[in-house]
Amino acid sequence: MALNEEQRKELLQPLLNNGWSMVEGRDAIKKELKFKDFNEAFGFMTRVALKAETMDHHPEWFNVYNKVDITLASHFVNGLSERDVKLAKFIDSVSGEAKS
Amino acid sequence: MALNEEQRKELLQPLLNNGWSMVEGRDAIKKELKFKDFNEAFGFMTRVALKAETMDHHPEWFNVYNKVDITLASHFVNGLSERDVKLAKFIDSVSGEAKS
Repeated sequence: MALNEEQRKELLQPLLNNGWSMVEGRDAIKKELKFKDFNEAFGFMTRVALKAETMDHHPEWFNVYNKVDITLASHFVNGLSERDVKLAKFIDSVSGEAKS
Repeated sequence: MALNEEQRKELLQPLLNNGWSMVEGRDAIKKELKFKDFNEAFGFMTRVALKAETMDHHPEWFNVYNKVDITLASHFVNGLSERDVKLAKFIDSVSGEAKS
């Protein structure tokens, strides 16, 4: 189910206070991360990939060298759902020293 | 060094005949691959990541679920170099059942 108004205040706002932002024209959130190098960036991506596969909920992401740009949304609701919140929290928990 | 005219005929043209295309407005090549699922797509990305790290030459790439869009160019020549040809050939050798 798509996030309702109450969930947006309770679950989404903390993410927006932590480096995530709304994607223009879409009910989706994004974050741009910068790691030390490709090793760190792809190591991070691998941890997220394993989590995403377990959740059957996958990010849209772009990588070049030490940069990873991530967008989260739920195709099945055509917008944000609790799964995006969960995956975003996981991403924040493993992005370690990355700068956003 | 950037690819010269002779190298473009000998090395680049075979890639363009094999699903790669020039990026508009840049001296870079791109390929869009579609795998069976995320497991296959990220497995492929991991193989490319290890090769890229060994070569110290990294792709620009976007992934969502089973799709991987790859762009190759060499920052140090601001265009295509032999490293891009080498990485593109490796990508083709491990992209297996992907459709481009």
